[in-house]
Amino acid sequence: MRRYLGIDPGVSGAFAVLHLLDTGDQALTVHPIPCDWIEVGGGKRRRYNLFALHKALVHTTPISLAYLELQSARPGQGVVSMFSTGFGFGVWQGLLTAIGIPYMLVAPQRWRSRVGLPAGGKKKAIKRGVCLAACRRFPGMAIPLEHSDAVMIAVAAALEHGNGGG
Amino acid sequence: MRRYLGIDPGVSGAFAVLHLLDTGDQALTVHPIPCDWIEVGGGKRRRYNLFALHKALVHTTPISLAYLELQSARPGQGVVSMFSTGFGFGVWQGLLTAIGIPYMLVAPQRWRSRVGLPAGGKKKAIKRGVCLAACRRFPGMAIPLEHSDAVMIAVAAALEHGNGGG
Repeated sequence: MRRYLGIDPGVSGAFAVLHLLDTGDQALTVHPIPCDWIEVGGGKRRRYNLFALHKALVHTTPISLAYLELQSARPGQGVVSMFSTGFGFGVWQGLLTAIGIPYMLVAPQRWRSRVGLPAGGKKKAIKRGVCLAACRRFPGMAIPLEHSDAVMIAVAAALEHGNGGG
Repeated sequence: MRRYLGIDPGVSGAFAVLHLLDTGDQALTVHPIPCDWIEVGGGKRRRYNLFALHKALVHTTPISLAYLELQSARPGQGVVSMFSTGFGFGVWQGLLTAIGIPYMLVAPQRWRSRVGLPAGGKKKAIKRGVCLAACRRFPGMAIPLEHSDAVMIAVAAALEHGNGGG
């Protein structure tokens, strides 16, 4: 059996595991990022629950290969948003390294084009396209919009390593 | 023996381990953050070497308690700088969580006041004050400016937990 891990980092993201059995059968499991709501100033903010995330990640091992979506600083973004994006990206790399899961960083354009989707376009249209593709690929499952990136990143990882069963 | 870990995250930071032996003797080890120089665009950037950092961190265990300096988004900072700060903070929390090292987040003002230094002031003067204090505390060692935060954070961790030997 081979298992491919697709990771869409960020507090509203998810990680997905594509299990490719030796029989040719496939299975998919999707995990939302475990988060807690923390009071910050007057409002509430979602924060990673690192202990739950670590536990869930260890539970998915052994992983043949993980694809972690590349994150980077974008001009014009707010400092809080950039700090959070960097934080999530760091958390994932820290956990993957410490658990010993082999991983690669993959740019959004690259995994999307690998699974046959347009690399660019309007953000909303891209999101919807990824969700449609995920639902087509796994027709028995209800895959919400916010989990579909993780699912298709896992599919891209499997495809690029010759185990796509596309 | 007890060991207290002080962490000044960031690519130019360090981590320090204060060993408190049952005999009353003390020892200090300081590790710069392992980094590689990566070509980015036309220039070069320092990046964490996560595998070396993980290995070095595992090597310090068991740790009684780690103090990780709290990082947060600061208005007026650049997006690249904020992304990097968030990234480093995330890496450390991911590694500490996965390795199972107990840790606390500590604001700069708090650890500085715990070791008897002014909580605020001009950045350069603060840095120099911390370095002087570190050199006084460990007279046998040459502690450079960029390692002294980590050293005094480790001292603060030990002090707050009743093992300061101040």
